[in-house]
Amino acid sequence: MEIKYPTGKKAKKTPTRKKIKSRIILNAANRGMALEVDLNLANAYYQEKNIATITKRPTPIRVVKVDYSKGAKITEAFFEKQSTTDYNGIYKGKYIDFEAKSVSLKTRFPLANITPHQFSHLQSVINHGGIAFFIIEFSTFDEVYLLDASLLISAHNEGKKSIPYNKIKEKGHLITRKLAPRLDYLKVVDAVYFKE
Amino acid sequence: MEIKYPTGKKAKKTPTRKKIKSRIILNAANRGMALEVDLNLANAYYQEKNIATITKRPTPIRVVKVDYSKGAKITEAFFEKQSTTDYNGIYKGKYIDFEAKSVSLKTRFPLANITPHQFSHLQSVINHGGIAFFIIEFSTFDEVYLLDASLLISAHNEGKKSIPYNKIKEKGHLITRKLAPRLDYLKVVDAVYFKE
Repeated sequence: MEIKYPTGKKAKKTPTRKKIKSRIILNAANRGMALEVDLNLANAYYQEKNIATITKRPTPIRVVKVDYSKGAKITEAFFEKQSTTDYNGIYKGKYIDFEAKSVSLKTRFPLANITPHQFSHLQSVINHGGIAFFIIEFSTFDEVYLLDASLLISAHNEGKKSIPYNKIKEKGHLITRKLAPRLDYLKVVDAVYFKE
Repeated sequence: MEIKYPTGKKAKKTPTRKKIKSRIILNAANRGMALEVDLNLANAYYQEKNIATITKRPTPIRVVKVDYSKGAKITEAFFEKQSTTDYNGIYKGKYIDFEAKSVSLKTRFPLANITPHQFSHLQSVINHGGIAFFIIEFSTFDEVYLLDASLLISAHNEGKKSIPYNKIKEKGHLITRKLAPRLDYLKVVDAVYFKE
């Protein structure tokens, strides 16, 4: 039965903790940050459950000036580009390495989002027998895909500027959102790299 | 035949590039830095020769203030402790993870050099089937040892405060210095983890 209030308006459901959390995150200026939060939460979950040990590399920062009179306070520094990828670790005895990117575009993923260093780093990982992939979010559709790194590396080597959304939908693997962890990307890693 | 100069003094040998390099490094205020330089050079060598892809995680820095009027210049930040280890990567299909420390002590390696987080991180790596170790330099003797992480983790779990130098000499594996790479630690990894 629906409860009617004196004004005649429907009672608003009290938002769940999860909804609040995702609302805060999705309102964040940087949408890429929401993806990073989800991946960090997933990694914390995997660590807690002894499923995998995968961590985010800290953002490299070039320190210019340090004030040692104030307990090593950095007073001048600049963000640098990650020369490798953001995430790596170990899962089921295998080395895992990936880069995550979020785009608001609807039709393509521009390869300029990935540095040449990152492509060659992931190629090295493949050469040494590791698992290398990209996690790409199309934030407009709230869709997150896992793509084997070789797909983007080939496109980059062929001089392509972007990968069409349709191709990512076709060749990539959708990571469905769930409760915990919200972005269970290792389930997709299982299906893609550990099927036997 | 020895060449005598007018003054009667022996001619000094022109120092080799290698000697100059190590002299500069060993004069550095922070001896730990010399070990880090050697490891970074070794990793660069392994990368170049397609032997392995092992990288140093950037030092985590907590950014407090950023001046966006000057192209994202960080004006207040602090160094943070690495919650995992400094180095990880892939070698011969295996996940590699290690922490490197240099001490000037002659008789022991204090376990306080390693954080509880780092011990549990390396234990997780072992649990997931990776290769986990420590590289410990006794700078006074110019000796660098590779020790399987389990040795230090056990000592830590038993509540020990340090590992005697003699035990490290006995249970560890000396990494001999050579020309290139100066600290060929993967040669020792081969002997310890890939002997068949």
